[in-house]
Amino acid sequence: MELWIPFTDKSAPFYEQIYRFIKEEIQQGRIAAHTRLPSTRKLADSLGVSRSTVQLAYDQLVAEGYLEPEPYRGYFAAEIDVLLNLGQRQEERWSPMTGDGEEGLAADTRAENGEEDPSGSAGEPGRASGEGARFWVDFSPRGIDLDHFPFHTWRKLSRETLTMANKSLFTSGNPQGERGLREAVCRYLQSARGVMCRPEQVIVGAGSEYLLMLLNQLLGSSPIAMEDPTYKQAYRVFQSLGHRVVPVPMDKSGMEVEALRASDARIAYIMPSHQYPTGIVMPVGRRQELLAWAAEGGRYLIEDDYDSEFRYRGRPIPALYGSDRNGRVIYLGTFSKSVAPAIRVSYLVLPETLEARYRENCGFYASTVSRVDQEILRRFLEEGYFERHLNRMRGLYRNKHDCLLAALEPLRDRFRIQGDMAGLHVLLESREGCREAELLERAAVVGVRVYGLSEYFLAPDRRESHTVILGYANLTAEEIQKGIQALDGAWSK
Amino acid sequence: MELWIPFTDKSAPFYEQIYRFIKEEIQQGRIAAHTRLPSTRKLADSLGVSRSTVQLAYDQLVAEGYLEPEPYRGYFAAEIDVLLNLGQRQEERWSPMTGDGEEGLAADTRAENGEEDPSGSAGEPGRASGEGARFWVDFSPRGIDLDHFPFHTWRKLSRETLTMANKSLFTSGNPQGERGLREAVCRYLQSARGVMCRPEQVIVGAGSEYLLMLLNQLLGSSPIAMEDPTYKQAYRVFQSLGHRVVPVPMDKSGMEVEALRASDARIAYIMPSHQYPTGIVMPVGRRQELLAWAAEGGRYLIEDDYDSEFRYRGRPIPALYGSDRNGRVIYLGTFSKSVAPAIRVSYLVLPETLEARYRENCGFYASTVSRVDQEILRRFLEEGYFERHLNRMRGLYRNKHDCLLAALEPLRDRFRIQGDMAGLHVLLESREGCREAELLERAAVVGVRVYGLSEYFLAPDRRESHTVILGYANLTAEEIQKGIQALDGAWSK
Repeated sequence: MELWIPFTDKSAPFYEQIYRFIKEEIQQGRIAAHTRLPSTRKLADSLGVSRSTVQLAYDQLVAEGYLEPEPYRGYFAAEIDVLLNLGQRQEERWSPMTGDGEEGLAADTRAENGEEDPSGSAGEPGRASGEGARFWVDFSPRGIDLDHFPFHTWRKLSRETLTMANKSLFTSGNPQGERGLREAVCRYLQSARGVMCRPEQVIVGAGSEYLLMLLNQLLGSSPIAMEDPTYKQAYRVFQSLGHRVVPVPMDKSGMEVEALRASDARIAYIMPSHQYPTGIVMPVGRRQELLAWAAEGGRYLIEDDYDSEFRYRGRPIPALYGSDRNGRVIYLGTFSKSVAPAIRVSYLVLPETLEARYRENCGFYASTVSRVDQEILRRFLEEGYFERHLNRMRGLYRNKHDCLLAALEPLRDRFRIQGDMAGLHVLLESREGCREAELLERAAVVGVRVYGLSEYFLAPDRRESHTVILGYANLTAEEIQKGIQALDGAWSK
Repeated sequence: MELWIPFTDKSAPFYEQIYRFIKEEIQQGRIAAHTRLPSTRKLADSLGVSRSTVQLAYDQLVAEGYLEPEPYRGYFAAEIDVLLNLGQRQEERWSPMTGDGEEGLAADTRAENGEEDPSGSAGEPGRASGEGARFWVDFSPRGIDLDHFPFHTWRKLSRETLTMANKSLFTSGNPQGERGLREAVCRYLQSARGVMCRPEQVIVGAGSEYLLMLLNQLLGSSPIAMEDPTYKQAYRVFQSLGHRVVPVPMDKSGMEVEALRASDARIAYIMPSHQYPTGIVMPVGRRQELLAWAAEGGRYLIEDDYDSEFRYRGRPIPALYGSDRNGRVIYLGTFSKSVAPAIRVSYLVLPETLEARYRENCGFYASTVSRVDQEILRRFLEEGYFERHLNRMRGLYRNKHDCLLAALEPLRDRFRIQGDMAGLHVLLESREGCREAELLERAAVVGVRVYGLSEYFLAPDRRESHTVILGYANLTAEEIQKGIQALDGAWSK
């Protein structure tokens, strides 16, 4: 087919106009289902734009389900009636240009409940999509790069796992998770995170929220200290489980120990390797102070190590668990960031002090991850695929990270850049005291979505923020550059 | 290879001697890994036993991982060192001849925590295998027939699901479960169970235990009434979540409403379609009484419909949920029995009275089932595979069920047979007042494992039992016949 797109809207960038035009053609049925669209090169040539511009539009249309890519064949228009049923899914998909106008809790939930989330939860159900093109770049801190998910390997492993010889995989498994997978997790943690543990200490579960529910039955619902700002999804879980949450302010090293000591908290939930959202990496001194606090009163530290795989400067920092001599640290790990949120596999490493209590109180709970999925992941880990995947993703993310920092150079005089040592997002703090809300508004005017730090705060009095969060994991280099350019302009006015 | 098995042990049946001999040959390395064993026919001929006798031994060796079956090629000796790592798995596999000497809680846990369990949990972790041949027939009430699991279909669907076009399946999904799957569940429930509901009321989760955890956050931990005897795994969950459990005695129609009214319970957990373990099918009158009890006080009934798919006599009985006019029934369904325990998919259907509270209190919890698994199951349901599978399994189970009842004829003068209308197990009550413990002991002497009803009781004073439970789902017709013959002899002494 031939496509001629009139670039009438001078204010909107080319990608957006191409995206909007094709989306409407499909919605109106003017492009029939199963019609093959022009190749990105062909369309780019005929429109006189860059091929990556067309690619970006196509990617978004795929992400929203309007186009279906077929390997080696190209892009095809999807069936609309199917799309209608997909209403919800669209909302949950990563999509650089998708956003919605909701503010307050909804926006907050989105900002926290998406792919970023170790347990991979999404926004509230039932929210219809729409306004798909309000933002043409979305610096979502919750995305991961799925274009490089090892589908081929995953499909191969799953095919090889589903054989009659493995029929036992369809019978009940070990409540803690299959031993083979737990052994693989132990080996990974020892080599990559300096965590020495036995398979008996590992509990495999479908997402961090579920594991926190289990933990709640081990620890009881005593007051729990959280870094402020923090990972809101964990906050919601603790609250709904009846914990009283004590927000503890942070300094540049992390949770302030004085404030923690002043509280009656028996448990502290922390992210020492790369605090979310501040990106702070907790120095050894602070770690020792927190370990001491825990050791004194028979207290516990929950170490959420959600994205430690991605670190770009300095030597990798071992997990806090590794330096705990008193069995006070509970390690929470996940494959949501390192593989994909939707494989739904997280794990706890219990200190020996809790092993017996776990067997007694929770030993009867069946694992929430299917044995087939556990076996696929075990092989992914054991046969070297995971390591190769991680190295590859580290490289990809580092490139995006460096691209972002380069693009941010012109803004350095007006903004302080934080949390750029690791992870998949950075923070920009206005040196001129420009308020967060204004930064978000001005960004929205030029069609760029950024996220405010204030949404991550627990204590209301700390919500006066001048900081925005930029995630880059699911953006292309071009999107990052163009997006930052647009922000530079918007914030210079 | 040639195999000559000396049948030295006159007391043990042929299967067991064949099984033991080959197992030891492999353990000792006298049969090397990857060696192809004689075909069942060849070995049967050379030993002068029936082919099914050899088959039974091979099946058990496969179940315990000593042999690996290869389609069209035969049986091969497995690698021992691999087997050592499988120590735990062996324990968790269904295996007609496997048993262990543990009594009390352990035995109780086994009797409840196995495949029978809607949430598909297993025995406690870390328990070593061994004594693999103490029982040559195990009438476990927790088994399902996995020899007829539709592997080919499952593999096909999983292969077709894992494509680049579906990459969005690896991003976060809908917290309640993907809409497509929830719609499929609604359609199934309407046609098969008389349950009318909207996808918004359905919550997909990884196992019934997880869904009961969620429910706990909806209903709070008020006193909960349970049928006595009942499904112990649910009892453990409620207890560990801090509910006070009120055991309510049963008459032939199910939970006694007078006793329920006398209690302060606000919630009642019941299995009206086929009570576990008694097999009682609750008549309409009793259902109405319970619905009235719930409607009066704004109370709730949790209807666990764990194995309603399998019913052999009379017309199918619709779910209690369908006759609830006041939004007091919470429906709990599972695919553990109807597909396989290890796919880890169960679901709740909330009454409209609880929808809003769910969104508020639990709406942020991510679904614990991976989107890939949800999509595979959706297609399994939507494309007719599930219906065909169910019809097939119904036929298979009915045959085993009829075979069991036929074999039991000679015992009818000494035993009352109960719960034979549906499900995958029946109860035998001694008319001569022979105590349960003695029945179990005598059965064990002849190498047959049966289960005592007393282990399912909550109130100690009701533990004086004369009833044993016979499950038959994972036994062959020959095992059932030979097993019952042995029991007849053992219990005649």
